[in-house]
Amino acid sequence: MEGEEQMKIFNKISELRDYVKERRKESKSIALVPTMGYLHQGHLTLMKKAKEDTDIVIASIFVNPTQFGPTEDYEAYPRDLERDVNLAKEVGVDIMFAPETEEIYLKDELTTVTVDSLNERLCGASRPGHFDGVCTIVSKLFNILNPDQAYFGQKDAQQVLIIKKMVDDLNFDIEIVTVPIVREEDGLAMSSRNKYLNKEERKAALVLYSSLKLAKKLIASGERNANLIKEEMISLINQEDLAEIDYVKIVKQSNLEEINEIEGQILIALAVYIGQTRLIDNLMLEVEK
Amino acid sequence: MEGEEQMKIFNKISELRDYVKERRKESKSIALVPTMGYLHQGHLTLMKKAKEDTDIVIASIFVNPTQFGPTEDYEAYPRDLERDVNLAKEVGVDIMFAPETEEIYLKDELTTVTVDSLNERLCGASRPGHFDGVCTIVSKLFNILNPDQAYFGQKDAQQVLIIKKMVDDLNFDIEIVTVPIVREEDGLAMSSRNKYLNKEERKAALVLYSSLKLAKKLIASGERNANLIKEEMISLINQEDLAEIDYVKIVKQSNLEEINEIEGQILIALAVYIGQTRLIDNLMLEVEK
Repeated sequence: MEGEEQMKIFNKISELRDYVKERRKESKSIALVPTMGYLHQGHLTLMKKAKEDTDIVIASIFVNPTQFGPTEDYEAYPRDLERDVNLAKEVGVDIMFAPETEEIYLKDELTTVTVDSLNERLCGASRPGHFDGVCTIVSKLFNILNPDQAYFGQKDAQQVLIIKKMVDDLNFDIEIVTVPIVREEDGLAMSSRNKYLNKEERKAALVLYSSLKLAKKLIASGERNANLIKEEMISLINQEDLAEIDYVKIVKQSNLEEINEIEGQILIALAVYIGQTRLIDNLMLEVEK
Repeated sequence: MEGEEQMKIFNKISELRDYVKERRKESKSIALVPTMGYLHQGHLTLMKKAKEDTDIVIASIFVNPTQFGPTEDYEAYPRDLERDVNLAKEVGVDIMFAPETEEIYLKDELTTVTVDSLNERLCGASRPGHFDGVCTIVSKLFNILNPDQAYFGQKDAQQVLIIKKMVDDLNFDIEIVTVPIVREEDGLAMSSRNKYLNKEERKAALVLYSSLKLAKKLIASGERNANLIKEEMISLINQEDLAEIDYVKIVKQSNLEEINEIEGQILIALAVYIGQTRLIDNLMLEVEK
């Protein structure tokens, strides 16, 4: 085996569940890192952190069809299980759960978990049903594994806020741990979808982070007008020919509602098409009045 | 103490959770009997069955506001915790969980669990949102207690089918156990709402069970036309002045869709107002063609 210890791979819910129950009897703490695979440094950072915190790290690799819209990239989404297995081994993942779609979804699935209103804002407006798909698959994974902790990347800021709300509301006995955005050397936020970018687009994609840095600079210099900051960001992004804005928003972290004045715990979030590829990035700040 | 062993009463989620975790470490099996209190023989039968099957029986008493419509009887719903405590002790319940509303629902609850299409049929048509409220509170209780089994009465046939579907779809690791309808000597299905009936209404309420017995007799005699059976039931109920039909339906158990021909696993379900009180009853049958 390539890792220090043998990593176990499971495809079947019942086998994984039995195995985890045995480990739990040994009073092992259990962490879940849910992913859609095609792992990058962002995922691996989550897994390393989970390994520091807990005895047994389970990484799931499942490209969840219900969080993709009909015109989105479910079929094209990059997949490479062998590569993922090797990367996960290297960072000390103990168990990989890589089920087929049919193992996770019954033919006539009828149940949905919804976090109202939060699911319609930001990415939810451009991707209707996306966060219901996320909440439902995450609920399923939580119920299958019953982990003590679950790890999510801050890059999906809205996802993190929605899942935390779901955990509170439905009384899941699970701690949600987040890890800051991991970036390429030039600042591009790591994403499995960066693979779609050609050389020109890869360069153009920097505009997302540049616009966030601009916002940060404006706030640091004392600017508190959210609309003015958004306009500056939009104007910067529009200078890039390959970029087409989906949204640029400045919201309260607690409810994702847009604000006029920068104050308190805020989230600056944006989604921008670079060519055909939709990329997201964000910045969370605590700002004094 | 009045029971053989001491029954513990919890009001706080965290205290109950800690206590149950300790018991689980002793490899005890745990059953949940969720109720809205004002216990009758139906509930007590569930609790006795749970006690036969498992080490520790937890009965919850919680009148769940989110499963009542705005014009329904949430405020008036009968409550008598002291009486419930004594009855539960007598049948060997180990733990009673009787939280305040504020302990269960955060101020800004946003999450809902929905079982699509099943939640709109039968009682769902007259009580919009009712089954979403049920699924959400049951999910919360499941996550708080993580029981091995949960017990539900067959009187709420649609509720049982919906919860079983939710458990399958969301991969809850919980066995749903059902217990047949418990009836008064004259045939009236036990219900906390029977308390609302005055003497005349109590007598009139027998018409629900009479109509089910009529349906059963017709099917036994070879009748397979569902509409004809329904008409006979409706005609019988309408002879009772105090009765006003909400619905009378004959459906497939699997999807709750109405059928024309009696065959296979069927559910005959009805809801009838007796005066101001809405009562339900049902009959599940497996019928050969």
